[in-house]
Amino acid sequence: MRRYVYQGKILSLAIEDEHWEIVEHKDAVALLVQDPERGVLFVRQYRPAVGGRTLEIPAGLIEPGERPESAAARELAEEAQLGGRLERLAEFYVSPGFTDEKTYLFRVHDPRPAAGTPDADEELEVVWLDPDDVLAGVCAGSVQVSAATLIGLLYATGAER
Amino acid sequence: MRRYVYQGKILSLAIEDEHWEIVEHKDAVALLVQDPERGVLFVRQYRPAVGGRTLEIPAGLIEPGERPESAAARELAEEAQLGGRLERLAEFYVSPGFTDEKTYLFRVHDPRPAAGTPDADEELEVVWLDPDDVLAGVCAGSVQVSAATLIGLLYATGAER
Repeated sequence: MRRYVYQGKILSLAIEDEHWEIVEHKDAVALLVQDPERGVLFVRQYRPAVGGRTLEIPAGLIEPGERPESAAARELAEEAQLGGRLERLAEFYVSPGFTDEKTYLFRVHDPRPAAGTPDADEELEVVWLDPDDVLAGVCAGSVQVSAATLIGLLYATGAER
Repeated sequence: MRRYVYQGKILSLAIEDEHWEIVEHKDAVALLVQDPERGVLFVRQYRPAVGGRTLEIPAGLIEPGERPESAAARELAEEAQLGGRLERLAEFYVSPGFTDEKTYLFRVHDPRPAAGTPDADEELEVVWLDPDDVLAGVCAGSVQVSAATLIGLLYATGAER
């Protein structure tokens, strides 16, 4: 039995069987955009939840009734004004000990300009970086990334897959 | 300004600036144990938060005042009755859009038996599986994993790293 403590915009908090603290959260998409010349596309942004700036691949939440592929195309247009052919690489629960949030990771093939307007409450800096350099920074603890970003980096640098 | 809606055992829920829904959560460790003969060590378990069973590499929360390395050794002993030399591979925020939870991923070298008692509220099945098979299942959407597990799988199958 789930007793709801809070029901909000992007998440709800419930206690199950008076024991498990569970966050119900919208699912998400993340996008790996890789170019042989420019590297991988990242966004730098301030994240209130962690109280600092992160380097992440483009990502966003799936709205109710939206398919992961549609959310992926929308987020890529909003955050980077890009479109392209989407290949679903993998899906994973971000932290199944406490939340049902699942992220769908896509690779974007043949990226091309697309019309999109950034969310009003997001201040993003879009940058292309060498994935090997970023991965070295992650391993050294000097670059703060999301799980989806590290997964994207490992796909980007593991050419054999 | 953070206004707390809930303060619990493993997490707290706060609203920042009357806008951002933020879950403060303990940090975590995850452990990649790989053997040339047996493959990679996984635990199968029922996860109330996702309402189903997952396949994950051993993982657990860092207790207050505990170092990541100490938590990693403790969790590995509790979940798999194993010890070994720990190498820190990477750290990442699981979902920085809403939570500060960070996971530290370790590789375990020279695994050997160690004394440890499983948590009373965890029912785990410990299994060794071929990481290429599991990765294929993740990509096909037939195996449910955590972000840390997918990251571990990519390290395990990317021999060049």
